[in-house]
Amino acid sequence: MSEPTLKRYRLKVAYEGTLFHGWQKQEPPGLEPLRTVAGVVERAIVTATQQPIVLTGASRTDSGVHARGQVAHFSAATRIPVERLASAINSRLPEDVEILGAEEAPANFNAIAHASSKQYRYRIFNSHRRPLERRNIVYHCWHTLELDRMNDAASRLEGEHDFASFAAANHGRLTTVRTIFRCHVERDEPSDEWHIVVQGSGFLYNMVRIISGTLVEVGRGAMSPSQVSAALLAGDRRLAGPTLPPTGLWLEWIKYPPDEVIRSYVAAEPAAEEPPPE
Amino acid sequence: MSEPTLKRYRLKVAYEGTLFHGWQKQEPPGLEPLRTVAGVVERAIVTATQQPIVLTGASRTDSGVHARGQVAHFSAATRIPVERLASAINSRLPEDVEILGAEEAPANFNAIAHASSKQYRYRIFNSHRRPLERRNIVYHCWHTLELDRMNDAASRLEGEHDFASFAAANHGRLTTVRTIFRCHVERDEPSDEWHIVVQGSGFLYNMVRIISGTLVEVGRGAMSPSQVSAALLAGDRRLAGPTLPPTGLWLEWIKYPPDEVIRSYVAAEPAAEEPPPE
Repeated sequence: MSEPTLKRYRLKVAYEGTLFHGWQKQEPPGLEPLRTVAGVVERAIVTATQQPIVLTGASRTDSGVHARGQVAHFSAATRIPVERLASAINSRLPEDVEILGAEEAPANFNAIAHASSKQYRYRIFNSHRRPLERRNIVYHCWHTLELDRMNDAASRLEGEHDFASFAAANHGRLTTVRTIFRCHVERDEPSDEWHIVVQGSGFLYNMVRIISGTLVEVGRGAMSPSQVSAALLAGDRRLAGPTLPPTGLWLEWIKYPPDEVIRSYVAAEPAAEEPPPE
Repeated sequence: MSEPTLKRYRLKVAYEGTLFHGWQKQEPPGLEPLRTVAGVVERAIVTATQQPIVLTGASRTDSGVHARGQVAHFSAATRIPVERLASAINSRLPEDVEILGAEEAPANFNAIAHASSKQYRYRIFNSHRRPLERRNIVYHCWHTLELDRMNDAASRLEGEHDFASFAAANHGRLTTVRTIFRCHVERDEPSDEWHIVVQGSGFLYNMVRIISGTLVEVGRGAMSPSQVSAALLAGDRRLAGPTLPPTGLWLEWIKYPPDEVIRSYVAAEPAAEEPPPE
């Protein structure tokens, strides 16, 4: 039997982030490794494939942030057929993380560098009641919110802007210019929640949580929509709203160009082996 | 200012049971007290009212079982107006329990003895996908289930029967005859779950979890509806299905006769200070 060849794989990963110290592996030598999504999934893949793989995720979600559609890549030479790969990994995973899909990707596929758009959803439980069993997956807001005001402010964030006012101080990026394709607030009927939906090319550190904090300030009347425009222009973090807690934040999906487009990219493009913190 | 008079209060309590060792207080002298719903709520009431109250709940829910409408009573002489009592207690409660309502009750009101009907809901996540953020509040069932078969079996449990086959061995009751007013299985569209809804006069220990385990056996084809009738007649626990885990079980509501009916009861009725384990 010939050796299996090295292939690139793309995974779609969902997790409930409450009991994870975020996505990014944190296993400093000599110290107790932290429980991270990448660490747990990587270990399951190593066990399943018996290959010393390295898993690279598209978004470095923080502690307590959740995902329905994180994307990650790795390379391995395994005899496990690709259609059985997801369940082979899942059978080695704890119950708060799940591989939703595994497929072969172009040899040069890079989950970080090739992402063309991402969507986040910030879930708000707006009630005088407590969220109880949802307490780890929503943000609890007591204030009365005004949907139209919030959407007026949200629409001002759409387009290409310098989002310096909407990034944590330690964002560590060369440029703070990003494009938001879509930003709006909707009432989610089945859950009776308010959802802030933000779709963009990429995000700065804490950007969605600061946008959400700003839109809540607008919704409860503590900021005006025009103050949001002003905050955007000023490039001053202090003019935007607070960073809301990670509990409400969900990474929904990440989109990529078709595989034939990815294959056409020059092989020498710069590697991005550290996902951006979001 | 005159001393406030002693009054009876009725509370409606909701909780997410995951981090509680059940409803019933477990604080053996000399040992570390266990975190229980009754223990936590009682302490909050004592702090709020400065009265040495004892809280009595209608149903002794197990570790990991949840409630949307547990009912409890206590007596206290407090100056806190009844319309502010729930929020006074809530402000002293952790985030996984909430007082949904507090009202003055007849002086002889007893949450255990006067309950006329209760409804439980057993939530089943029926999918090859994992429940992830719902893992503590549903039961995960991989098998394909047949709704009509389950409802055929469920309807056979309605009425007055000896439920000895559907009680844990240590039920500790003199009689195992109970009346089930309603038992059916429904698809819950918003959550995409299967719910077993059981309404009855009262329940034996583990009765709803055993009924649910039996209906799942029927739904997946491992038992027939007529075997459920046979199990009921035989009075043999081994003929019913398995006890499903507590995670999926929700105490929905408890009903009582109108206050004027409760007041008319003879004052000398036997006290029921230990709630039935359910």
